[in-house]
Amino acid sequence: MSDPVLDYLETEKPAIVQRLLELIRVPSVSADPLYEQGMSQIREVLLERLRGMGLSNVQTLEAGGHPALYGEWLKARDKPTLLVYGHYDVQPPDPLEQWLSPPFEPEIRDGRIYGRGASDDKGPSSIALETIAAFLRVENRLPCNMKVMLEGEEETGSRSLGAIVHNYRELLTADAVLSADGARWRPDLITVNVGSRGNAGFEFTVRTAAKDLHSGRHGGAVANALHVMAGLITGLHAPDGSVAVPGFYDGALAVDDTERRAIAGIPFDEESHFAALGAEPVGEPGYTTLERLWLRPCLDVNGMWGGYTGLGGKTVIPSEAYAKVTMRLVPGQDPSRISRSVKDYLIQRCPDGCEMHFGADRGQSAAYELPSDHPLLGAVEAALTQTHGAAPHRVRVGGTLPVSDIVRRELGIDTVMFSFSTADEDIHAPNEFFRLSSIDDGLRAWTWLFRHLDAASARDFTGFHHR
Amino acid sequence: MSDPVLDYLETEKPAIVQRLLELIRVPSVSADPLYEQGMSQIREVLLERLRGMGLSNVQTLEAGGHPALYGEWLKARDKPTLLVYGHYDVQPPDPLEQWLSPPFEPEIRDGRIYGRGASDDKGPSSIALETIAAFLRVENRLPCNMKVMLEGEEETGSRSLGAIVHNYRELLTADAVLSADGARWRPDLITVNVGSRGNAGFEFTVRTAAKDLHSGRHGGAVANALHVMAGLITGLHAPDGSVAVPGFYDGALAVDDTERRAIAGIPFDEESHFAALGAEPVGEPGYTTLERLWLRPCLDVNGMWGGYTGLGGKTVIPSEAYAKVTMRLVPGQDPSRISRSVKDYLIQRCPDGCEMHFGADRGQSAAYELPSDHPLLGAVEAALTQTHGAAPHRVRVGGTLPVSDIVRRELGIDTVMFSFSTADEDIHAPNEFFRLSSIDDGLRAWTWLFRHLDAASARDFTGFHHR
Repeated sequence: MSDPVLDYLETEKPAIVQRLLELIRVPSVSADPLYEQGMSQIREVLLERLRGMGLSNVQTLEAGGHPALYGEWLKARDKPTLLVYGHYDVQPPDPLEQWLSPPFEPEIRDGRIYGRGASDDKGPSSIALETIAAFLRVENRLPCNMKVMLEGEEETGSRSLGAIVHNYRELLTADAVLSADGARWRPDLITVNVGSRGNAGFEFTVRTAAKDLHSGRHGGAVANALHVMAGLITGLHAPDGSVAVPGFYDGALAVDDTERRAIAGIPFDEESHFAALGAEPVGEPGYTTLERLWLRPCLDVNGMWGGYTGLGGKTVIPSEAYAKVTMRLVPGQDPSRISRSVKDYLIQRCPDGCEMHFGADRGQSAAYELPSDHPLLGAVEAALTQTHGAAPHRVRVGGTLPVSDIVRRELGIDTVMFSFSTADEDIHAPNEFFRLSSIDDGLRAWTWLFRHLDAASARDFTGFHHR
Repeated sequence: MSDPVLDYLETEKPAIVQRLLELIRVPSVSADPLYEQGMSQIREVLLERLRGMGLSNVQTLEAGGHPALYGEWLKARDKPTLLVYGHYDVQPPDPLEQWLSPPFEPEIRDGRIYGRGASDDKGPSSIALETIAAFLRVENRLPCNMKVMLEGEEETGSRSLGAIVHNYRELLTADAVLSADGARWRPDLITVNVGSRGNAGFEFTVRTAAKDLHSGRHGGAVANALHVMAGLITGLHAPDGSVAVPGFYDGALAVDDTERRAIAGIPFDEESHFAALGAEPVGEPGYTTLERLWLRPCLDVNGMWGGYTGLGGKTVIPSEAYAKVTMRLVPGQDPSRISRSVKDYLIQRCPDGCEMHFGADRGQSAAYELPSDHPLLGAVEAALTQTHGAAPHRVRVGGTLPVSDIVRRELGIDTVMFSFSTADEDIHAPNEFFRLSSIDDGLRAWTWLFRHLDAASARDFTGFHHR
């Protein structure tokens, strides 16, 4: 079935890949001020692209943190408006020594683009931008009104996105969000995400002495900050794998039998899943792996350190220890309240004579669920059915898409995830990659989605504003 | 009481301080290969000094690691021979940001020299070298035969010192060791050290997955290397503060009532001691602080790390965690055996599906005790009584002087510590310093010790070889 836009995208493919490589080359790490120049450079590149593809009103949306980028095409009178979402920031590249090719010098090997941000979210965001650009180029129109917003703080908990959406809510008014973020679950199963976990997190320090002490001179008679930190971290979980913090599971909706049956019906080979990770299943008792990942909250220490960490030895009793903690939360849970419970628990367990200090909170998001009858979800399912020959499975994602929570609160609209990254692509880890085949899949699916939206020109999302 | 050597040292004082500053400026960190150039530079400087002061047979003593430096003066026929010991290597300077002046740019403030190695052990070693140089310059002789050995691996557990002493045991034959290392306990009490704890240590890694995982995608369903590491570290101690490893206290001699009374008789204000450290007393139940420090073994984690440790956050489930562990051991304990017990315990507690790997062992030393009737101890006590007007208290040191253990095994001789650093001088920590007044104290005491050895010219240490 020939389609002029698809034909154009086919001829444009090498240039599309080159443009994606160009984006990956820019080290746009939002977490670390050392990468400030990369952040400002990628904004210039992307603003130029938004203008170049024919969007108007192109601008940065500022609210104190890394600004979001914006452009719009609003010439489809009486049609709904989609807010197309992606993000231009990436995770820090550490540990650098584990990358086979440098994180910001993308390399194509075995049909994959390797580089930080290739999969999360420069590849998937590019698919959205390239599809819009192709429609405007070939047909000089889009199937409905579109507003494009590219966030710059997704990897740091979308700290100022709430303020951005609040400050610019007139500009951003839309009927639904179509997100290019939120990876597909697996390469071997066609799925659509209908929910994500929320998150919260913080960093904290313990101090046991005014300064580091000689381990010979003082060993055996004073507290060691690393022993104290290890005890605090250990105490966060019960021996059975559940989180030991009182109140941690508060609000979490019970997993009912209908949900359990639906999840059990999704093809999932636990053994090969864990074999691929090189890990063992561990977690809260009484739940399957998928239930743990999709419907139960959890807590992880993302970093912990103190004392001498260089080569060789140093006979020191460290006076300070540090840890970074994040939680994943489920529908019904209030991130601030759960985060407060964890802090209170740590404070209560901090030994006498030891000081505890909490750093700034990460951005927080509540968990998100998409109404099962949302028309944009229907359009996405139709597009995926068409490109893949079978209806996608409805699944959830264990990760967090703060934008869903924010636009629900601020604009009263829902978010449909339509990303073409895949969760096995080592996002947030060394050797992150994006499959070249996903670019083809994604361009085809986005094009079909646009065709569906066009055909159903009467379809109106305004009745589906989030209840 | 005028003494020509003391008079000379008095005029030479500014030059002595300058020469010490020159030594501190050389970053001779033995633990980290990045400092290789500093290590080779300081050897050149010191070899030149040993030659310049009139020692002969000056050479490096090699056994695979950082070589020791050697020089001798053997013209005192029929007199005993002392092996004068110091070390030229220093601890790593981390954490750099806590230094008020850079660690290798020594600065004199408030009567103190600040810089890495000022107190441990460049200041005290300089006192020994300057006294020997002054006697040779002023009187063209020493009170007895002297062999000088400066070690280069004291701060990394004296890994190859055993092999050096073994390989060069003919060259190093002596009647006793006079050590310029082994700090004085306190600035307000005149003491002499008659024992030190032994040590052992190792580094280990735990791995829970083939690679780092996204904390959203996998959180709650796989092991986290930091949680595992925290649990392992926590398990090393019982809640009461004692070490929980079976066999850890094996061999440790019981603390008897005579020793307890002797220790209780030493002036020690526990409250001001801990106030100065900004720490609380913590440790094995049933022992006082001094008993814990001098007569009981202990275990400390010196460094622990894993996951994301940079600014901001990274939502990762770390797959690897690292820790460095050292033990301090007491008379009667075998370092290899105790170290093996700790490793076995860690292996046994490592959860299923988690890999554990041990790095190379640190150098190990048994604890050391000086015979209470050793003639060199008597001479040192006489010198200290003369310079300070009162007999010193006999105390122990919680730290380790591997050289004592090694020369006892290899040469059958004892070691008397005669250092003029003080244990409050932030050795192994940021802002290490050495008191300028300790240079005066030390030069006077070393001079009087030489005079005592000279007067007692018949004194023969050969009957005191270690039993």
